[in-house]
Amino acid sequence: MAQRIAIIPGDGIGKEVMPEGVRVLEAAARRFGLDLELEAFDFASCDYYLEHGQMLPDDWFETLKDFDALFYGAVGWPETVPDHVSLWGSLLQFRRRFDQYINLRPCRLLPGIQSPLAGREPGDIDFYVVRENTEGEYSSVGGRMFEGTEREIVIQETVMTRHGTDRVLKFAYELARSRPRKKLTSATKSNGIAITMPWWDERVAAMGERYPEVAVDQFHIDILTANFVMHPDWFDVVVASNLFGDILSDLGPACTGTIGVAPSANINPEGTFPSLFEPVHGSAPDIAGKGIANPIGQIWSGAMLLEHLGHREAADAVVDAFEAVLTEGDRRVLTPDVGGTGTTEALGRAIASRL
Amino acid sequence: MAQRIAIIPGDGIGKEVMPEGVRVLEAAARRFGLDLELEAFDFASCDYYLEHGQMLPDDWFETLKDFDALFYGAVGWPETVPDHVSLWGSLLQFRRRFDQYINLRPCRLLPGIQSPLAGREPGDIDFYVVRENTEGEYSSVGGRMFEGTEREIVIQETVMTRHGTDRVLKFAYELARSRPRKKLTSATKSNGIAITMPWWDERVAAMGERYPEVAVDQFHIDILTANFVMHPDWFDVVVASNLFGDILSDLGPACTGTIGVAPSANINPEGTFPSLFEPVHGSAPDIAGKGIANPIGQIWSGAMLLEHLGHREAADAVVDAFEAVLTEGDRRVLTPDVGGTGTTEALGRAIASRL
Ligand SMILES: CC(C)[C@H](C(=O)O)[C@@H](O)C(=O)O
Ligand SMILES: CC(C)[C@H](C(=O)O)[C@@H](O)C(=O)O
Repeated sequence: MAQRIAIIPGDGIGKEVMPEGVRVLEAAARRFGLDLELEAFDFASCDYYLEHGQMLPDDWFETLKDFDALFYGAVGWPETVPDHVSLWGSLLQFRRRFDQYINLRPCRLLPGIQSPLAGREPGDIDFYVVRENTEGEYSSVGGRMFEGTEREIVIQETVMTRHGTDRVLKFAYELARSRPRKKLTSATKSNGIAITMPWWDERVAAMGERYPEVAVDQFHIDILTANFVMHPDWFDVVVASNLFGDILSDLGPACTGTIGVAPSANINPEGTFPSLFEPVHGSAPDIAGKGIANPIGQIWSGAMLLEHLGHREAADAVVDAFEAVLTEGDRRVLTPDVGGTGTTEALGRAIASRL
Repeated sequence: MAQRIAIIPGDGIGKEVMPEGVRVLEAAARRFGLDLELEAFDFASCDYYLEHGQMLPDDWFETLKDFDALFYGAVGWPETVPDHVSLWGSLLQFRRRFDQYINLRPCRLLPGIQSPLAGREPGDIDFYVVRENTEGEYSSVGGRMFEGTEREIVIQETVMTRHGTDRVLKFAYELARSRPRKKLTSATKSNGIAITMPWWDERVAAMGERYPEVAVDQFHIDILTANFVMHPDWFDVVVASNLFGDILSDLGPACTGTIGVAPSANINPEGTFPSLFEPVHGSAPDIAGKGIANPIGQIWSGAMLLEHLGHREAADAVVDAFEAVLTEGDRRVLTPDVGGTGTTEALGRAIASRL
């Protein structure tokens, strides 16, 4: 039976990189004989919002829930729709309603990509950020009081649950255990954020008892960001709350020079609902429409999608394909962000033709 | 009349770098004929806690409130006292009760210090982080429910006030206006932290109307940390909430290779209460007791203290002194973190002898 994949390009460069993501998915499907059925949707974009006054149709949940995976581009167009409206109306709905409680983001130094860090070589940096993806600091509880006056106050509650925290920690410990170094780093801030974060530390320690093979350490988020820059080789699997994970999974790719090409997976590990795969980069209004966005973030996310659907070999082939193109370093094919003069489409085609 | 400075070494390497901070302060006072009166205190340390069951004596507020400045080393010794107990019982009390609502931290590439970023030279990176220092994410409101059960939840409220936010923004805009580039960057996360942060953006915009000469931009905290690594030259003055400022003011110095030497000022601009000056680094249990901690963070904090007390010339002389020693690069004098084989004391003496 075919596996069904919903294609949601979204906004800005999302609409430019998605065709290349699809091109490579289809090439991989042909080569490995996979039965994938792709269906495209125009919602979860600011264009849709401008037309319909909401980011998603009323029946989006029903429409999407039986897909095997969602392949998303990027969302946000602050010139016409405020970010908190577009994001809370789309991506953050998907994450919550489809209980995609793991956000998994690899940080890896790739061949042919210039790292902003001095003296680092491919192989030096290779870790995962496992981010809690449904609760924590991204809460919808709170509000304003004495609005518009000098006494105005604004409150927002961070809400962490044992249910929500333990399942992420479990995933992170298991991922760490499956890797050669078996090392887990917890991002905390228990010295300053003194209610939720000491509790987070306790849960990390409690879960650790089940995984004696895994070596655990922890850093406060401030010095942890510093260590990403100073000692990126220290890390293997890093587990973090929603906000800390958000920060670390932009900073990590930045340290490997791959912020424009980094992928991410929003996973519902039980498979009750579809998981969602999207590049880490956003809609990039500054370069949208120019046809020069790097499609590797989308393509690499497609590889994570294939792996999630059980097609390990195809996933590896996609990664090999873009690594080969990067290593080759043909400037006519590479996009400007990685030192070339090529277009989104040229790079997408070059990668697809390797498959 | 003498200006009175409270000397509070604290824990770990705080006790090792403070004597050098004092040595240099005294040398500057001699050279510029300043009338400084130094008085040392053993509280606000974990040793004090172990003896007295609290971090501070009951009358600490009365004892310290009439000092002109507080010169602090570092606090925290997690082996014996949990960080949230030691920090909330000392440093965070000072910041709040003495209404030190500005935390000011320079990020500057110094001569003779190796930056982890490729191809950056002194002069390339030179900005300030202005951090809100009394409220926001560092709140004491919240708690646990269903404790010890599977249903356990933990809540912590971020509380931002117009009073608390506007005064920090004002300080940041004025600092930006006083600098040649006149540029202010606001750290936000209004796409995800959708109650407090859109409000923060509104306050930034509202305050901006009073400072038309200042060019303002904003980045979400995730991509902002990435930009610190990729484009540190973009920044002039960065203003941020308590938590975001905490992160950025560790990451910024890390990008300049100066995490061990970065200073900070916790300022009560009105002078109603004493301001507090401390290095950014912590008590560093891993190297404490070895006599190899770099004292420049403490010494540079002393320069900020001198400037705050109106002694601009003396402050500049201290900065010139440690920059000269760094530029000279005598390995016997420099501590191991900056490529030398010297001791804390040797480096402190070398700097003092320049004054
Ligand atoms: C020790 C800790 C509570 C403190 C903070 O988070 O404010 C420190 O990291 C700092 O930046 O001064
Ligand atoms: C767009 C934004 C709401 C989102 C987040 O903060 O989760 C993004 O930064 C991400 O990391 O996926």
